[in-house]
Amino acid sequence: MTSKTDSGKVYRNECTGDALETVSKHTEEQDLTLFGSCFCPFVQRVWVAFEHLKIPYKVHEVDPYKKPQDLLEVSPKGLVPGLRLNNFSPPKALNESTVILEYINDLSETNTGRSLLPPASNPYARALVRLQCDHINRSVVPAFYRYLQAQDQAAQIKGGQEFHESIKASGSGERKALAIGLGLWVNENEDIGLTDVMIGPWFYRATNVLKHYRGFVFPEGEKFNKWLNKLFAHPDFKGTCSTEDLYLDSYERYAFNRPNTSQVANAVNSGRGLP
Amino acid sequence: MTSKTDSGKVYRNECTGDALETVSKHTEEQDLTLFGSCFCPFVQRVWVAFEHLKIPYKVHEVDPYKKPQDLLEVSPKGLVPGLRLNNFSPPKALNESTVILEYINDLSETNTGRSLLPPASNPYARALVRLQCDHINRSVVPAFYRYLQAQDQAAQIKGGQEFHESIKASGSGERKALAIGLGLWVNENEDIGLTDVMIGPWFYRATNVLKHYRGFVFPEGEKFNKWLNKLFAHPDFKGTCSTEDLYLDSYERYAFNRPNTSQVANAVNSGRGLP
Repeated sequence: MTSKTDSGKVYRNECTGDALETVSKHTEEQDLTLFGSCFCPFVQRVWVAFEHLKIPYKVHEVDPYKKPQDLLEVSPKGLVPGLRLNNFSPPKALNESTVILEYINDLSETNTGRSLLPPASNPYARALVRLQCDHINRSVVPAFYRYLQAQDQAAQIKGGQEFHESIKASGSGERKALAIGLGLWVNENEDIGLTDVMIGPWFYRATNVLKHYRGFVFPEGEKFNKWLNKLFAHPDFKGTCSTEDLYLDSYERYAFNRPNTSQVANAVNSGRGLP
Repeated sequence: MTSKTDSGKVYRNECTGDALETVSKHTEEQDLTLFGSCFCPFVQRVWVAFEHLKIPYKVHEVDPYKKPQDLLEVSPKGLVPGLRLNNFSPPKALNESTVILEYINDLSETNTGRSLLPPASNPYARALVRLQCDHINRSVVPAFYRYLQAQDQAAQIKGGQEFHESIKASGSGERKALAIGLGLWVNENEDIGLTDVMIGPWFYRATNVLKHYRGFVFPEGEKFNKWLNKLFAHPDFKGTCSTEDLYLDSYERYAFNRPNTSQVANAVNSGRGLP
């Protein structure tokens, strides 16, 4: 447990570091516009997928707490990520990271054959990936926020344990996450796949935000650590990462559980599913 | 609000009525074995899909609270539905209703072309269905249980309002659920599709369990009601429905929020996402 005081830092609105460089390469109009915010892990999921699938896109950075009109038009709750499909008139829209991921993967499979999933000829392998993604969404991600928002020491210890447990429960049988890493079995060619994209953004924030505010360390597992490092170094993932200070600043409000931090934080505090 | 007393009824273990007839037609060994329980709406999702896609399957009725070994082998938490793939040696397995649905739909699209989703050539239409299914899983289904398990009058009124709101928030724009029904827009041929399969089991239990224990009535909407009746009368849906008494008996323990009713009930009581 680290003891720190809330210094009142506010979330950032513009990417830094590698992510800023990637933004600067995606400022031209395209068929698809990704509405995103620099600190948001749900956005990073979609962003990594765009990079990996090599689909042309424009990034549009928005402040999801100010909810500009153009964001509300593509995402009724004003949540990022949002996707605008400019090749329809009037433009169509999608929201929800998992829905957008499936959509751009469908597009990519049809257009170029690139995919985050095992081939359609192996529906069982695809199903195992979906099972893993379901566990990530319903167990690992909520455990991350409960841990980060826990204020008293007992709740923080319990939060850390539950986050560890949710990681250890990933995978099944000989394919348990700690034994082999979460993502390596997704694609036999060992390139990143949907599982990596789905969990990577939170594991990355665990190495800076959770480490800084909660003294977090990952459960031990040689292959697991090797997988983590490989994922964080992958150009398609690294290219969507800002510098550490951006995450530490943006997540201070979660770490001190300031009132009305976000719809996600409120849902966790009230014991509801994530919005 | 109805006032009733807990008569101590226990959940049933065998289908009745139309569902029993369907079970009796699916007792022979097949490549796929569906592990199910007669009262479980998550199982009914998969079951309707099997019927609609015309995939050969065997039904294996299990008691998910006794967690027999063969169930634990296909579903680590002992939750139904489970699916055993007998054409592998040793057999492989899947669990989670949404994962099984995607899997058997993938199989069916490859083998016969029958699908619960719009054609792959229209990825945006598929994405809209997935957006709807995401809302059903994360909003409508949890609201059903919170409402049914609410004990004091104020909580029941709030539960009923939230269940109504979750229904009204389904769909978007001109495609709001109340204006057109939830499922009709899923397939242009107006046959049932993934959205119907995903929500039908809870809406059906709303017409008996919620009506009996909470005096529930659906929000008004001419096309919505027409769609509901059409869905309930559809042979692939109707063929998986037991008689009303089975649901009233099986859900009494939810309606009086008896301790340790189920993993689903416990999750709702503790403010966690559904297991």
